[in-house]
Amino acid sequence: MTEAKLSTRRSIVLRRRPTGAPHPDDFETVEDALPEPAAGQVLTRTLWLSIDPYMRGRLSAAASYAAPVEIGEVMTGESVGEVLVSADPRFAPGDFVVGSRGWQSHSLSPASHLVKLDPAGPPLSTYLGVLGMPGVTAYSGMTDIGQPRSGETVVISAASGAVGSVAGQIARRAGARVVGIAGGPEKGLYVQETLGFDACIDHRAMDLGGEIEAACPTGIDVYFENVGGEIQAEIFARLNPFARVVMCGMVSQYNSPKPPPGPNLMFVVRQRVLIQGLIVTDKPERFAEWRALASPWVMDGSLHYREDVVQGLENAPEALAGILTGRNFGKLLVKL
Amino acid sequence: MTEAKLSTRRSIVLRRRPTGAPHPDDFETVEDALPEPAAGQVLTRTLWLSIDPYMRGRLSAAASYAAPVEIGEVMTGESVGEVLVSADPRFAPGDFVVGSRGWQSHSLSPASHLVKLDPAGPPLSTYLGVLGMPGVTAYSGMTDIGQPRSGETVVISAASGAVGSVAGQIARRAGARVVGIAGGPEKGLYVQETLGFDACIDHRAMDLGGEIEAACPTGIDVYFENVGGEIQAEIFARLNPFARVVMCGMVSQYNSPKPPPGPNLMFVVRQRVLIQGLIVTDKPERFAEWRALASPWVMDGSLHYREDVVQGLENAPEALAGILTGRNFGKLLVKL
Repeated sequence: MTEAKLSTRRSIVLRRRPTGAPHPDDFETVEDALPEPAAGQVLTRTLWLSIDPYMRGRLSAAASYAAPVEIGEVMTGESVGEVLVSADPRFAPGDFVVGSRGWQSHSLSPASHLVKLDPAGPPLSTYLGVLGMPGVTAYSGMTDIGQPRSGETVVISAASGAVGSVAGQIARRAGARVVGIAGGPEKGLYVQETLGFDACIDHRAMDLGGEIEAACPTGIDVYFENVGGEIQAEIFARLNPFARVVMCGMVSQYNSPKPPPGPNLMFVVRQRVLIQGLIVTDKPERFAEWRALASPWVMDGSLHYREDVVQGLENAPEALAGILTGRNFGKLLVKL
Repeated sequence: MTEAKLSTRRSIVLRRRPTGAPHPDDFETVEDALPEPAAGQVLTRTLWLSIDPYMRGRLSAAASYAAPVEIGEVMTGESVGEVLVSADPRFAPGDFVVGSRGWQSHSLSPASHLVKLDPAGPPLSTYLGVLGMPGVTAYSGMTDIGQPRSGETVVISAASGAVGSVAGQIARRAGARVVGIAGGPEKGLYVQETLGFDACIDHRAMDLGGEIEAACPTGIDVYFENVGGEIQAEIFARLNPFARVVMCGMVSQYNSPKPPPGPNLMFVVRQRVLIQGLIVTDKPERFAEWRALASPWVMDGSLHYREDVVQGLENAPEALAGILTGRNFGKLLVKL
């Protein structure tokens, strides 16, 4: 390498916002001189850069859970690097680090944003995949939401991907039956033979619903959602009581300028919404609890209620017709 | 009353399954002699019968969380009654009870299905409303799912109804700002003036979305769903990060022979599904946890992963385009 190259930094910046699929022309490479770290900063050389589906969201101006990359700004991304110059006591030249450092050959980072890696440990690249953000996404999704139990059926979309492949292996370790969904026979074979999933469905199948049903004869208890669209609809139709759905992403629609029609739950991911169904008799202990709590409020008049009273058992059918269209005003009762 | 009337029981049975809105002709009244309780049973006279929207689901043959009422069977329902004859030591004539006893003038129930009520306590009818199944539904929904906190904004649909009116009052007691949605000015006035909600929106408003936005200037943290349809869509578009949605019912579609097109989440209620969005960085502690757990599995080869490596920083944009259409196979990385 020449001296010029050693002192030059290459960065890929966003040139314009893509419409639909991103294209290399939406980006451009710029060069500048290697910067000097100020106190508390570290200059690193990038060894590995991670490419992840979430990055599509950063290219759009639309509101998301993170700020978009601005035009002319370096594209965001996690990377593994080697420390060249350190102005922080925690790092020394030759250290390996992982952090969010963007699409750059060299990066200047606050030391507090970097995590030091042991070169004698797992391969450095795994800190961007199985041990990095995608692996932790799978782990957090299964630990905090999915919670698969032994004997349950877990379905994972994008099963051969960085997140799905780990999510399924975690569910297998928990004793669940794990069914993957992936595109094409090569990925399907990998998911079953190497990852050890119990089955894998090709999402290009003619009868996707039928294949899901055949692979999940007792229904679905956990769904790890990476894809959205038709797959989501087919899975939702086969969820068991008390199923958990980890809404991690919907890559099938990231290139769409407008959200596709029909059920669209991308807001659940973006806003980390919790949506949960309720049937009151599932928690019978709440009845006695609520009566003990609220009876004094009824007696002292501080809990307000209104009754809409229909006279005579024979008028119950007409009353039921009315409650469905909001004709009643207050709790509808029949007095015998 | 004549001796004949005293010894006769009237029951309303399902004659045929309604299409669309239920009609009184879908039911018929049958009479039989008052039954004698066997050991462990109690004969009661019905005083109050509850009419609730969930009953529409019992009239359909379609699978739900509870078995449908069969043709010729007594219609299901909660009621308050007075014990006439008891063949169980826990109850005596003159006792007041609440239980699921159907649309009947008199019912024979297993004693274990009845709860005794104190006539000196709250009015007997409240055990079908504010202290009964609808009140407990509101309580369980707010306690187990919604968990409103002081300063948060909570929206309740069907706000003047038996469930909504209690749900909103619970949220007010928790210090939340509570916005109701109800049909017409009379119900709106009741919701604001008597129930003490901070605002109430008429769902017949020309610009429903605009009215919701005006009433919830900082967005929505908890939504208690009783209605579905357009209201649901307008609320979902305005949920804050970490919002909770209590899916209690969707009365707007109970009379529809087919589920309406577009987003339809009735399965969330029916199956008590939990759907939760995930952004991995919300729980930063999961990173260190997962690395400690999974590094040994990477080292011993028991956690499988596959990498798809692109050479050169300049190829990062093309790689990103590919990951969105599933061109990669394994964790996509750029090697510099």
